Amino acid sequence: MAGRFITLEGGEGVGKTSNMIYIQSLLKDKNISVLQTREPGGTKLAENIRQLLLDKGQESIAEQTELLMMFAARAQHIRHVIKPALEQGVWVVCDRFTDATYAYQGGGRNMALSVIQWLENFVQGDLRPDLTLLLDAPVQLGMQRATHRGKLDRFESEKMVFFEKVRQTYLTIAEQQPERVKIIDATQSLENVQSQISNILSPFIHD
Amino acid sequence: MAGRFITLEGGEGVGKTSNMIYIQSLLKDKNISVLQTREPGGTKLAENIRQLLLDKGQESIAEQTELLMMFAARAQHIRHVIKPALEQGVWVVCDRFTDATYAYQGGGRNMALSVIQWLENFVQGDLRPDLTLLLDAPVQLGMQRATHRGKLDRFESEKMVFFEKVRQTYLTIAEQQPERVKIIDATQSLENVQSQISNILSPFIHD
Ligand SMILES: Nc1ncnc2c1ncn2[C@@H]1O[C@H](COP(=O)(O)OP(=O)(O)OP(=O)(O)O)[C@@H](O)[C@H]1O
Ligand SMILES: Nc1ncnc2c1ncn2[C@@H]1O[C@H](COP(=O)(O)OP(=O)(O)OP(=O)(O)O)[C@@H](O)[C@H]1O
Ligand SMILES: [Mg+2]
Ligand SMILES: [Mg+2]
Repeated sequence: MAGRFITLEGGEGVGKTSNMIYIQSLLKDKNISVLQTREPGGTKLAENIRQLLLDKGQESIAEQTELLMMFAARAQHIRHVIKPALEQGVWVVCDRFTDATYAYQGGGRNMALSVIQWLENFVQGDLRPDLTLLLDAPVQLGMQRATHRGKLDRFESEKMVFFEKVRQTYLTIAEQQPERVKIIDATQSLENVQSQISNILSPFIHD
Repeated sequence: MAGRFITLEGGEGVGKTSNMIYIQSLLKDKNISVLQTREPGGTKLAENIRQLLLDKGQESIAEQTELLMMFAARAQHIRHVIKPALEQGVWVVCDRFTDATYAYQGGGRNMALSVIQWLENFVQGDLRPDLTLLLDAPVQLGMQRATHRGKLDRFESEKMVFFEKVRQTYLTIAEQQPERVKIIDATQSLENVQSQISNILSPFIHD
């Protein structure tokens, strides 16, 4: 049987990476083989593209360049990592995926929805996440949590209004696709967030 | 007045780079400001993308990834180099451009024409070369010339049948767009090639 594809989404510092390990342990307890990965990245070439994307070089990156690099990395990731794993029955848990493109490049940078949709279809064919956990928190809170980590990358250096648009776009996607996208209140303690995740994952695992 | 956009195309080793300097000198003799550039590349980020594209790493590059990286680099090149120059009245002479994508990714790798056209429109808007010089020679001849240079990159390592398709695609484009694309017999001596180029450029300059 094919594996399932779970993605973790949300703005800066909401706790995506922190909760990856918890999700992995939940699945392993049920004897499910899991592959943990992230975007942009997930292969050597895709991680090289990620570096170019996050770097605050002297050269500003054109919006179209950014969008195409995101999908170039994604195509590589799908072809070499995600699809092979799913085909072998391994479940894939991915830290950010195409919803992040809708949120950041679409919502944040106002790139046309139809453009992102075209690229999504070109690169993914009919591959879509089976389940997406959207960690939601006010922008300010995530920023406070994230800035403890030191130097900000190119995205983290954006302005408040950018991140507000990112958050609203994520919430709109969740509203439009309630079957796939589950909102998690990320303002809560880590324990509470994990119990929300567990409540969503348990029925999904037994489906 | 806006500058004009001239591109040099053709397979491996036909003499594109060798003739750049000659073209530049022809234009400078007429007191035209010229910018010489190349693809993939032309900006720091685009040259970084070029390196990832030409590198024969351990990881094979998915066709979609290759195509999207080409257009990502192109978007950056247009935005930061080509358009600003043309707007200032500077002529731009570029070693390879989108015809190379049609020839290599379209002809060579069988990527759908409609996909390349969509990306061309997305990235270029209505920017198209005003004149394209297609240096044409049998694949074998170009390969002989090019292999003198040492280690082959990822594209140069393709098989003969790939380069045959590249050449045929270039010739088809020239047939379909005879106004823009001029075929130059690159089997001739460098002097003869330059006189062919001069014959095409002279009326174009005085237009
Ligand atoms: N529910 C929580 N309550 C308090 N602190 C939290 C919570 N979840 C995560 N944190 C802390 O917030 C910081 C950011 O968390 P994490 O790196 O997991 O976020 P992220 O969503 O992966 O961020 P980014 O988008 O930058 O990758 C970390 O220091 C983490 O320990
Ligand atoms: N007309 C010609 N006759 C003989 N040798 C030539 C001619 N034109 C170029 N050469 C030689 O062929 C070699 C390849 O030329 P060049 O590098 O200009 O080709 P190119 O089209 O830029 O190749 P590439 O596609 O690999 O960039 C060089 O050594 C050059 O000196
Ligand atoms: Mg993270
Ligand atoms: Mg060359």
